Amino acid sequence: MQKRIRSNGVQSFTELRGSLDALAAGEELHAWIRDWYPIPRSLSGAGIREQFARMQAHIPLTLTQVVSGSPAFDWTVPLEWNIRDAYIKNGVGERVVNYNTHNLHVMAYSKPIHQSMTLDDLRPHLHTLPEQPDLIPYRTSYFNERWAFCLPHRLLESMPEGDYEVMIDSTLENGHLTYAECVIPGETEEEFLFSAHACHPSLANDNLSGLALATWLARALHQVPHRYTYRFVFAPGTIGAITWLSRNLDVLPRVRHGLVLALLGDPAPFTYKQSRRATAEIDHIVAHVLNERATPHAVIPFIPYGYDERQYCSPGINLPMGCLMRSQPGTFPEYHTSADNLDFVKPAALAESLELLLNIVEVAESNRRYLNLQPCGEPQLGKRGLYTSFGSPAATRAFELALLWVLSYCDGDHDLLDIAQRSGKTYEEIHRAAKALLDAGLLREAAKGERLAALT
Amino acid sequence: MQKRIRSNGVQSFTELRGSLDALAAGEELHAWIRDWYPIPRSLSGAGIREQFARMQAHIPLTLTQVVSGSPAFDWTVPLEWNIRDAYIKNGVGERVVNYNTHNLHVMAYSKPIHQSMTLDDLRPHLHTLPEQPDLIPYRTSYFNERWAFCLPHRLLESMPEGDYEVMIDSTLENGHLTYAECVIPGETEEEFLFSAHACHPSLANDNLSGLALATWLARALHQVPHRYTYRFVFAPGTIGAITWLSRNLDVLPRVRHGLVLALLGDPAPFTYKQSRRATAEIDHIVAHVLNERATPHAVIPFIPYGYDERQYCSPGINLPMGCLMRSQPGTFPEYHTSADNLDFVKPAALAESLELLLNIVEVAESNRRYLNLQPCGEPQLGKRGLYTSFGSPAATRAFELALLWVLSYCDGDHDLLDIAQRSGKTYEEIHRAAKALLDAGLLREAAKGERLAALT
Amino acid sequence: MQKRIRSNGVQSFTELRGSLDALAAGEELHAWIRDWYPIPRSLSGAGIREQFARMQAHIPLTLTQVVSGSPAFDWTVPLEWNIRDAYIKNGVGERVVNYNTHNLHVMAYSKPIHQSMTLDDLRPHLHTLPEQPDLIPYRTSYFNERWAFCLPHRLLESMPEGDYEVMIDSTLENGHLTYAECVIPGETEEEFLFSAHACHPSLANDNLSGLALATWLARALHQVPHRYTYRFVFAPGTIGAITWLSRNLDVLPRVRHGLVLALLGDPAPFTYKQSRRATAEIDHIVAHVLNERATPHAVIPFIPYGYDERQYCSPGINLPMGCLMRSQPGTFPEYHTSADNLDFVKPAALAESLELLLNIVEVAESNRRYLNLQPCGEPQLGKRGLYTSFGSPAATRAFELALLWVLSYCDGDHDLLDIAQRSGKTYEEIHRAAKALLDAGLLREAAKGERLAALT
Repeated sequence: MQKRIRSNGVQSFTELRGSLDALAAGEELHAWIRDWYPIPRSLSGAGIREQFARMQAHIPLTLTQVVSGSPAFDWTVPLEWNIRDAYIKNGVGERVVNYNTHNLHVMAYSKPIHQSMTLDDLRPHLHTLPEQPDLIPYRTSYFNERWAFCLPHRLLESMPEGDYEVMIDSTLENGHLTYAECVIPGETEEEFLFSAHACHPSLANDNLSGLALATWLARALHQVPHRYTYRFVFAPGTIGAITWLSRNLDVLPRVRHGLVLALLGDPAPFTYKQSRRATAEIDHIVAHVLNERATPHAVIPFIPYGYDERQYCSPGINLPMGCLMRSQPGTFPEYHTSADNLDFVKPAALAESLELLLNIVEVAESNRRYLNLQPCGEPQLGKRGLYTSFGSPAATRAFELALLWVLSYCDGDHDLLDIAQRSGKTYEEIHRAAKALLDAGLLREAAKGERLAALT
Repeated sequence: MQKRIRSNGVQSFTELRGSLDALAAGEELHAWIRDWYPIPRSLSGAGIREQFARMQAHIPLTLTQVVSGSPAFDWTVPLEWNIRDAYIKNGVGERVVNYNTHNLHVMAYSKPIHQSMTLDDLRPHLHTLPEQPDLIPYRTSYFNERWAFCLPHRLLESMPEGDYEVMIDSTLENGHLTYAECVIPGETEEEFLFSAHACHPSLANDNLSGLALATWLARALHQVPHRYTYRFVFAPGTIGAITWLSRNLDVLPRVRHGLVLALLGDPAPFTYKQSRRATAEIDHIVAHVLNERATPHAVIPFIPYGYDERQYCSPGINLPMGCLMRSQPGTFPEYHTSADNLDFVKPAALAESLELLLNIVEVAESNRRYLNLQPCGEPQLGKRGLYTSFGSPAATRAFELALLWVLSYCDGDHDLLDIAQRSGKTYEEIHRAAKALLDAGLLREAAKGERLAALT
Repeated sequence: MQKRIRSNGVQSFTELRGSLDALAAGEELHAWIRDWYPIPRSLSGAGIREQFARMQAHIPLTLTQVVSGSPAFDWTVPLEWNIRDAYIKNGVGERVVNYNTHNLHVMAYSKPIHQSMTLDDLRPHLHTLPEQPDLIPYRTSYFNERWAFCLPHRLLESMPEGDYEVMIDSTLENGHLTYAECVIPGETEEEFLFSAHACHPSLANDNLSGLALATWLARALHQVPHRYTYRFVFAPGTIGAITWLSRNLDVLPRVRHGLVLALLGDPAPFTYKQSRRATAEIDHIVAHVLNERATPHAVIPFIPYGYDERQYCSPGINLPMGCLMRSQPGTFPEYHTSADNLDFVKPAALAESLELLLNIVEVAESNRRYLNLQPCGEPQLGKRGLYTSFGSPAATRAFELALLWVLSYCDGDHDLLDIAQRSGKTYEEIHRAAKALLDAGLLREAAKGERLAALT
C-alpha cells in the first residue's frame, strides 16, 4: 500500500479537534441526513447505490459490486431488489397505502404482486404496530420470498371490508450487492476500521447518523497527517459485512482498532459496547475518553447480537472492534418505525457524537508504548530544563509529576493510556509529558512486545 | 476397563430426572436409612460389612478387605474391632447402661473389660454432654487402646455412689479394614467419583443420608446411558479413604469430577464446599446449579478439615472433588449425638438433595467444549430452519439468541456452563441450543486443549 | 561474602522482640535524635560526615567517598559544600538573621557572598512562609549556583528598609559525596536492604527518625542470629541513592526485601507505600503485620515521587522495596520547616515504629515456602504426638487446625504468610505449627520455584 499523507493546513489531529466548530458541524451532519433520508436504501439495488453516490460528494469511495449468487463464508449473495411503485387501492381507486409517500410502506425485498383481494385475504400481508397505532413499522424478508405492506394501525382499522387492488412493482433479479470503501493511508499500514450499515431506508438515526459521522470523519482525515491507515466500510447489514470480510482476509491482521458506528443522532447518553476481546486497546480508549469527558454513558460487554460487530467479532474473526452508539437497538420506541425520522435526530447530539469520535481518534493516534532510556534511577531533569526548583507554579509542578509518572511506567508494559489511568492524570497531561521526554531524548517507542529489562 | 452401558427404557439422564417421583424417592431413601440405622457400624468389623451387605440389595458392590497392619501412605491399617455386648450394672444387677439399647453407648474401639469398680473409678471412663443432658455423645478412640461408655448426663447424675459391674465384650484382633466400590462404566474412562463414609454407627444424617443417596444414584446410573464412568467408594472415614487412595493411584488421573456426600438428610440449606483447586469444573457446576435452582445455599472455600475431602484434596492428591452437604459438621446441636436419629432426617430433605444431585450429574454429563465450524461471520441459520423472521413468539426469539451465544463462544475457551453464565441464560437453554447446532453440523466437540484460531 | 553470625545471649529475633523494653527504646531513640539535631547535615560536606561519625558510636559503618564530578547513571556528583558562618546584619551591626542559631537559616548549597545591599535588593534572596509566619522554611538549590536565606515571615516584616550586610562564608569546591553502609551477614547472602536519607539539616522527623530507627535495628541485628544479610545504606537523598545504586549493581540481584525508612517519629498512623512491583513479599509482609497489629494505618500504591524509593524502584532497578512512614511527605504543616523539631517527634511514636519494624523483620526472617513430605492423604499426626483425642482444650484444637492448614498448603505455591492469610490464623500460629511439623520431619524448605507434584 502506498503511504500518502495529505495535509491541508491543519498540522495535527489535536489541532483539528481544537479548531472544530461543533455547532456548524452538527448542522452540516443534519443537513446530510435530510438529503439522504428519502433515498429507498435496501440490501441491494438502486437505492443503496444512490446513497453511495451522494456520499461521494464529500469523500472518495471505492465501490465493489458482488454478483448475486456469490458465496460469502456460509452465505450466498442474494438477488438484487428494486422497486418502482407500490400501493393498495380501495374500492373507489384511491391509494390507501402509497409507497411514494413513505418507503417504509413496503416490506423490503417484497416480491412483485398485482391483484385484487378482500381485506381478509390481504390482512396476513399487512404489518402494523397496535401499540403505536400512528407509526409505520420497518420490516424485511431478505431470505424468504414474500410480500407485505407496513402501515399505521389506525389506517388499517379505518379500512372497510371489501376488495382492494394490491400492487408492488418490484424486481428480484440477478444483479449485485454493493459496498463502498474509503481508505485513507497513514504513516503505518496498521488500520483503524470504521463500519456503518447502509441498508436501512427512511430511518434517520438507524443509520444515517452513523453514515454521516463516518463521512465527516473520513473527510477530515484527508486533511490532516495521521498515523493509522483509516478504512471506512459502508455496506448493507449482516450479508454486506460478511461479504466484505470474506473478500478482505488479508486486511484483517492489519486492523489495530475498529468501531461500528450506529444510532449516534438521538439525544440519549452514549453506549459503548466492548469488542468480544473486552480488553482490546480500543476498549480502553473509548472507556477512558468517555470517563474523562464526564458525560453520562454506559460501557457494556459484548453480546452476540446488535449491529455488524456480530460479524466483525464472530469467533473466527474476532477483530478488536467495538460499537459506539447512543441508544441501543430495540430499546427506544422510535426504533425501526417511521418515528425514527428527521425530528428524532438532533444537530446538537450529532455534534456531541462527532466530538467524542474525534477525541477517540486523537487518543488512538497518540497512544503508544515507550521505553525509558535512562531507567536506572531518575534521569536528571534539571539539566534538561524539565525540572524547576521550589516555588514554581502549580501547573509546572503538576507537569513535573506527569514527567515522573511517564518515566516510571514507560517500561514496555504500559502505554500512555495505562499511565493516565494509573496516575489519575488526564490523557492529555500524560501525552504532553511523553512528548517533552521524547524531545529530550529520554524515551523511544517500544518495538512490539519489547519490555525494559530491570537489573533485579 | 470394559465399556458397558445398560439401558432400561430411560434414554437419557435428562429423561430420568424429568420422570423422577421425588416424594416416593424421599420415602424410599428414608426407609433405607431406617433399615440401616441400628447396624453397629465402625471403622472395621462385622457392622460395616453388614452395612455393605444391605446396600448390595440395591446395587452391586465390590468389597476389598485390607489386612490389619497393611501400610497406607503414612498410616497403618488398625486391628479389627468387634463387639458383642456391653453394660454397666448397678449394685442390684440392673443394666444401667446397656449397649443393646443403643450402640453409641460404647466408645468405638473400646478394648474389652470386665470388672467391678466404684463410680469414682468409673467416672473417667464415662462421656456425657452436660449441656445436652438427655443425649448420648458419639466418641471414638481408634488409635489409643482405651475403653469408655457414653451416656446421657442425667443418667450419670442419677447413678448413686457404690460399686458397678463394667463389661465390654469386644475384640481388637488382626482382621481387615473393608471398603466397597461400585463402578458403572460409561462412554469414556474418565470418572466421576463419589465417596461417602460408612463408619459411623447409629447416626442418621452422618452419614446414612450420604450412603442412601449414593446408593440411589448408583442404582439409577445402571439404568440409563451415560458418558462418564461412575465410581462410588464407601469406606470408613479417614483411614478408609486413605487406604483406598493408596491402592488406586492408577485411577486418580482419570477422575474428572468428584463429590463427597455427607449430611444430606436434615432440612438445612445446602452447603457446597469447593475442591482445594477452587476453580475445577465440578466447582463451577455445583455453584451454577445451586444458583439456578434459587434454593438457599452457601458455597464455601476449601478448608483442610471436615470429611474425606481432606484426603481426596490433600496436596499430593488434589482431586477436583468438593463436598456436598446441607448442615456442616460440628455446627448443629444434633451433631455426633443420639439426636442425629431417624426423626432428624426427613424424606422431603432427602428428596430435595436427590434432585440437586441428579441435576448436578445431568449438567456434568452434558457440559462440554465445542468448536463453531462456521466461525467467520455468523452462519446462515435461516437456511437451516434455525432462524425465523419477525413476529415469532418470544420463546423462539429467546432460543435464537441462545444459538447466537453458543456460536459466539464455542471457541474452545468456554464450555456450555461458561456460556450459560456469560449469557444469563439457563444451562438448559444453552444446552438445547448446542444440541440444535450440533444436529445442524455447526459444532463439533473440541479435543482437549483445542482452541479456535481466529484470523486476527 | 564471609558468613558470620554473632550471638549475644539472645537466641532469636522472636526472643529479642519479646524482651524489648519499648519505653526505654523510645527514650534512647529520642536521645539520639537530640544529639544529632544540631548537626549541619547537607548533601555533602562536614555535617553529613559528622552525622556518620556519631552513628559509629552505636554501629560499625563503612564510609564511601565519591569524588565530585564522578558519573552516577544520568547524574554527576556535585561539588562539596561547606559552611562556617552566615548572617544578615542590620544598619547597627546586629545579626538579624544568624546561621549559628539555626542551620535552616541558609539555603543549602548557597554560594558565598559578602556585601551590603538594600532590603529591596535582598528580598529575592529571602524565603519565608507567609502562612506560617513564625517558622523557618527548609530550602535547597543543589544544582543551580544561588544563595538565599530562610527566615520567619514575621521577622522579615519587622525588618526596616535600609542597607544590610549579607554574609555567607561557604565553599563549593571539589570534594566528595559521602555515604555510609552497615552490612551484617546472615545465614544467606540474600539481603534485606534498609535505606534512610541523611542529608537534611535540623529536621527531626525528616529524617533523624529514620536514621535513629535504622541504627537501633542494625545494632540489634549484631546481637542475634538471623537468616538474611542486612544492609543499611545511609546517604544523601536522590543523588546519594543514585550514586550508591550505580556502584552496587552486583548487590541488587541479591536484595530480597527492601524498606526506605522515613518520617517515623511523629504520632500519625502508619503509612506503607508499596514497592513498584506491588506484590513483592515485602508488600505482603508489611500489610499483614499492620493488619494483625490492628493499628490504624494506610497501605498506598507506589507513586514515582516521595523519598528514595523513587530511585530504588525506578523501572531499570525495580527493587522489591517499599517505604515505611507515619505521616507522608508534604502532608503535615511541620514538613520542611523549623517546626519539624525535637518536640514534634515523640519517644512513644518512635517506640511504636520500632516495634512494628521488629515485627516486620521477624516475619521476613521466618516466612518461607515449605513442602509437605507426606502430601498424599493427611499424615498420621497422632503417632507423632501432634494430635490429641476429643476433649483437648480449645488452644490445642486450634493448634491442630493450624497444623492441617500448614500441611494442606505447603505445596510450594504458598509461603507461611499466604497460609496465615488464607486460614485467618495469625502468622505466629502458622509459624509455630510449621516449626512443629518441621521438627516432626513432615516439612522441608522448598527450593526456589520448587512445587509439589500432585498425582492428578
